[in-house]
Amino acid sequence: MDLKPSQLPGMSALLSPEEARDMDRLVPIRHFPKGTVLLKAGDVATEAWFCIDGCVHMYYDVDGDLRTTEFYTEGQAVASLYSFINQVPANHYLACVEDCTLVVWSYAAERELFGKYPNLESSCRVAVESDFGAHQEKFASFITKSPEQRYLDLLEQRPELLQRVPQYLLASYLGVTPESLSRIRKRILAKEAAR
Amino acid sequence: MDLKPSQLPGMSALLSPEEARDMDRLVPIRHFPKGTVLLKAGDVATEAWFCIDGCVHMYYDVDGDLRTTEFYTEGQAVASLYSFINQVPANHYLACVEDCTLVVWSYAAERELFGKYPNLESSCRVAVESDFGAHQEKFASFITKSPEQRYLDLLEQRPELLQRVPQYLLASYLGVTPESLSRIRKRILAKEAAR
Repeated sequence: MDLKPSQLPGMSALLSPEEARDMDRLVPIRHFPKGTVLLKAGDVATEAWFCIDGCVHMYYDVDGDLRTTEFYTEGQAVASLYSFINQVPANHYLACVEDCTLVVWSYAAERELFGKYPNLESSCRVAVESDFGAHQEKFASFITKSPEQRYLDLLEQRPELLQRVPQYLLASYLGVTPESLSRIRKRILAKEAAR
Repeated sequence: MDLKPSQLPGMSALLSPEEARDMDRLVPIRHFPKGTVLLKAGDVATEAWFCIDGCVHMYYDVDGDLRTTEFYTEGQAVASLYSFINQVPANHYLACVEDCTLVVWSYAAERELFGKYPNLESSCRVAVESDFGAHQEKFASFITKSPEQRYLDLLEQRPELLQRVPQYLLASYLGVTPESLSRIRKRILAKEAAR
């Protein structure tokens, strides 16, 4: 049997029976095999997603060179907001790095649910602001820290990610070549061994 | 006489008389002279702002080296969201690059207004999502474009900014030294002259 939004952990406490019924009717949860492209550059985003399980990455194709700007994992919202809100073509890609289970949030469902349930919209506002805050911090970290420092931050904050994504994607996320990432790792290991 | 939020262009059409009265009571508009520091690293943000007039920049102090991550001008919201939402100390500064007129939006006012007026919260959600979308695009532009391309984008999208902010701040915003910015400008002028 398919999983429903109202069956997700913690959701029954958040949703009234009526809200739960409408969520389950309007918002499907789907499985996507590894490699699935959710959004292509040039497409208009008509959906956003919420990651239940798996890993999605957002990336840009710069003259054939792939640049990852985010890895989304369990508990994170995945959205090409500029494209979704303004209904204009996206300039990037969203693809599944692993097999994924995702809540599929359409523009049409959002309008119906927010129109009926101001509380639901309020919860979403808080979540979006929190994600925006985290994004401001991420941008700042890119501006103010070296790739080695950003790698150390990842090691502390999202250690599981380092095991889950291929090294060339991790390197592109840190803004370095795979060879540089390999040197960064060796340097860190050498420092740890010298302690 | 002091300016009130309900007197701002377009606001009378958006707000009911009751909303306008509460906004004017809870949300002041204040003037800040050039150089005013609105938020210091280490402070907890208890306010956000909306720029009516002037220019505010967000910057980081990296071992004495100033790095600007944003210039906020007329019509833009100014917020250290991570600090404001989580009520934790900010890791950056907000300061007025010019004399500024700003709407001062406190956490307390937000709670009272959103509690009473779901429509107001809905408008804010849409605005925050739109700003978040723009921020995603900005991060992507930093990851995918050269400083020269980013300078050309600024020239096209925010030409007035280039006249308003000091060159060393503009250079830090583009992630280059003032000398590099000067070279970029000369290269662009030479290309234009050769056309």
